[in-house]
Amino acid sequence: MERVTATYLVETPLPVAQAAASLAGEQSSGTFVAVPGETAELKQRYAARVEKIMELESVTTPAMPTGRPPAASYHRAEVVVSWSVENFGVNLPTLVSTLQGNLYELAQFSGLKLMDFTVPPSFAAHYRGPAFGIAGSRRLTGVTGRPLIGTIIKPSIGLSPAQTAAMVKELIEAGIDFLKDDELMADPPHSPFDARVDAIMAVINVHADRTGKKAMYAFNLSDELDPMLRHYDKVVAAGGTAGMISLNSVGLGATKKVCDRGALAIHGHRNGWGMLNRHPLLGIEFPAYQKLWRLAGVDQLHVNGIANKFWESDDSVVRSIASCLAAEPLGTPVLPVVSSGQWGGQAPETWRRTQTTDLLYMAGGGIQAHPDGPAAGVRSLQLWWQAAAEGCSYEAALAKYPALAKSALKFGGSL
Amino acid sequence: MERVTATYLVETPLPVAQAAASLAGEQSSGTFVAVPGETAELKQRYAARVEKIMELESVTTPAMPTGRPPAASYHRAEVVVSWSVENFGVNLPTLVSTLQGNLYELAQFSGLKLMDFTVPPSFAAHYRGPAFGIAGSRRLTGVTGRPLIGTIIKPSIGLSPAQTAAMVKELIEAGIDFLKDDELMADPPHSPFDARVDAIMAVINVHADRTGKKAMYAFNLSDELDPMLRHYDKVVAAGGTAGMISLNSVGLGATKKVCDRGALAIHGHRNGWGMLNRHPLLGIEFPAYQKLWRLAGVDQLHVNGIANKFWESDDSVVRSIASCLAAEPLGTPVLPVVSSGQWGGQAPETWRRTQTTDLLYMAGGGIQAHPDGPAAGVRSLQLWWQAAAEGCSYEAALAKYPALAKSALKFGGSL
Repeated sequence: MERVTATYLVETPLPVAQAAASLAGEQSSGTFVAVPGETAELKQRYAARVEKIMELESVTTPAMPTGRPPAASYHRAEVVVSWSVENFGVNLPTLVSTLQGNLYELAQFSGLKLMDFTVPPSFAAHYRGPAFGIAGSRRLTGVTGRPLIGTIIKPSIGLSPAQTAAMVKELIEAGIDFLKDDELMADPPHSPFDARVDAIMAVINVHADRTGKKAMYAFNLSDELDPMLRHYDKVVAAGGTAGMISLNSVGLGATKKVCDRGALAIHGHRNGWGMLNRHPLLGIEFPAYQKLWRLAGVDQLHVNGIANKFWESDDSVVRSIASCLAAEPLGTPVLPVVSSGQWGGQAPETWRRTQTTDLLYMAGGGIQAHPDGPAAGVRSLQLWWQAAAEGCSYEAALAKYPALAKSALKFGGSL
Repeated sequence: MERVTATYLVETPLPVAQAAASLAGEQSSGTFVAVPGETAELKQRYAARVEKIMELESVTTPAMPTGRPPAASYHRAEVVVSWSVENFGVNLPTLVSTLQGNLYELAQFSGLKLMDFTVPPSFAAHYRGPAFGIAGSRRLTGVTGRPLIGTIIKPSIGLSPAQTAAMVKELIEAGIDFLKDDELMADPPHSPFDARVDAIMAVINVHADRTGKKAMYAFNLSDELDPMLRHYDKVVAAGGTAGMISLNSVGLGATKKVCDRGALAIHGHRNGWGMLNRHPLLGIEFPAYQKLWRLAGVDQLHVNGIANKFWESDDSVVRSIASCLAAEPLGTPVLPVVSSGQWGGQAPETWRRTQTTDLLYMAGGGIQAHPDGPAAGVRSLQLWWQAAAEGCSYEAALAKYPALAKSALKFGGSL
């Protein structure tokens, strides 16, 4: 029988093998005391297996409270556990309950983080994965050979549909490839969803008819399920090509339902991610996280960016981009969305470290606060990426393209 | 305009007022640089407001990495922030993105936890809350004046529908009020959902016809949305009264869609909770968490139990029970589900500290591993609660009811 395998980083006051065994028990056939029905045959078939333990350092202070008296030392280790797919069948939420359920509450651990997991090849028969992904997002926007350049409508909240549409018009005339609503706003009284779609798609469709280039606008679908589906249909009917979902807020069940429709590219916003990831010994790492959302069918997924305004390190961003571009689990990569404090000056370093232009490179303030206006902001981003893909360093880009100086001066890059 | 208010516990290397202002900005109209459209009028209307700051201790080691050079000290504080409901409209996922979105990633904080929030009275016009809750769960099971006594089918995984039904028969004949699937198993090949419902409801319905008492069985609905709704209908058609959802795995959107149907009591399992709550300075506290799920319409919600097998303290369990029983936000409390390592011996302390019997008191191994079999396990739990509600201490209960000694001996309580 095929198995799902998960890798955890753990910390425990117990011998690691003993703690790992209790994790495997809790997450399969066990309870806190042996029960009559738990036969040897049943255990053999359904019990989770500890496949591998790699011991790491020990420390004297636990990463997390255990609710137990202090121990002399806490042992860190990488632990690999596997389950028969027969345990949960084809059922993403129950896979999540298996990989990320009660185990975080076990007193046997003072730290536990899901680092990665693998699913067997048969999952490809049940899960399509991203219907659009990188290739589809490029096809819909007509962008080749460089990252899609995108922006977030700012201010996040408060613009009317007409004001938003006017801003969209300016940005698409400047050549923007992608735009999106802010995640804080979906269908509020001051910008009702349908009115916003009508106002914005009128602008986008007119421009597309005239130029052949249709900008992708990810309308924020995030809502309770019925309005989400209604809004989805509205976007499709208006000729739109994308919708956005706040993945952690909407959740796996409703997100998959929306992705399954397959008519719009789904832009996956990961707001709330810090809660799941920020502690080094609690939660989930991005390589595991992005697999869950690829299985659900998300096409574009946020990864932060180089020198972002958040706490995340460049190393972590680079790892996240690599995991999005990997073929596993379903053969279809998800388009990494680079954002957070981006203004173009990070393009050379992004290219140097990832060697890819398969990115959606997003700037909000970095475009709309450009000294010469949003249109100049878009051109500046395109030029930064042209320089980056030519192999220019930050300094070389500024030397070769003097037009970049204004953005560098405004957004705090050195000249 | 009505406002939503949230209380956070934060830790920051910056002056607290400055950090709080950046939180409010990130979660409303701001970006990392001022943009042209962000007028004073728009800010006045849509900007989040810092309502109150209560400074707490300072520490020299940050709770969480900030991605920035070390600071001399990190200041802890309780911060109250408010938003106009106009920002998000009536939209639970977008409320979550506002309360729990990007803010966890801000480098300005080395710790951030959502402690509680309040919604304005108008929410009651949009959200029904628990359709059953405490009163409905009592009505469906016919239990008054004591906690509902419940059990989890164990072993968690591996029993066939017929084996499960045989176990259910024994337990309901012993007088159990409530049973549930394990969260690790919903619709696996060895126990297909429909076959399990048929086998179990046949037993429950026969017993109900004969005795007038229908045990509530919470079938694990957790799945992708379409099968969840199909399984829901199956349970209703078979005469069942409840379904279980792994809330964190299924997510808010699909859970609300299921709750909205209103024909089954929804048992909310919080597996994965440790990931969201275990660190004292990251994530969300239960008083806030339970409000979100009450707004979605969950009827019963897990809170762990006194002396549980997990890391959670008794104080935290007691606080969680109190928050479930509070009328806010919608006037309808949610039934607290006490579980994890429970066997009855914790009943006196549970009663002493909560003074309520409005509980669903669950034991898995604590019933099924009873030395005289599951039926004796059920009777033992009932007797423990009878003693507890009579005001007996643990010792007094054992002295008054000698039949309790066997459970005490088996499950590690002192005699």
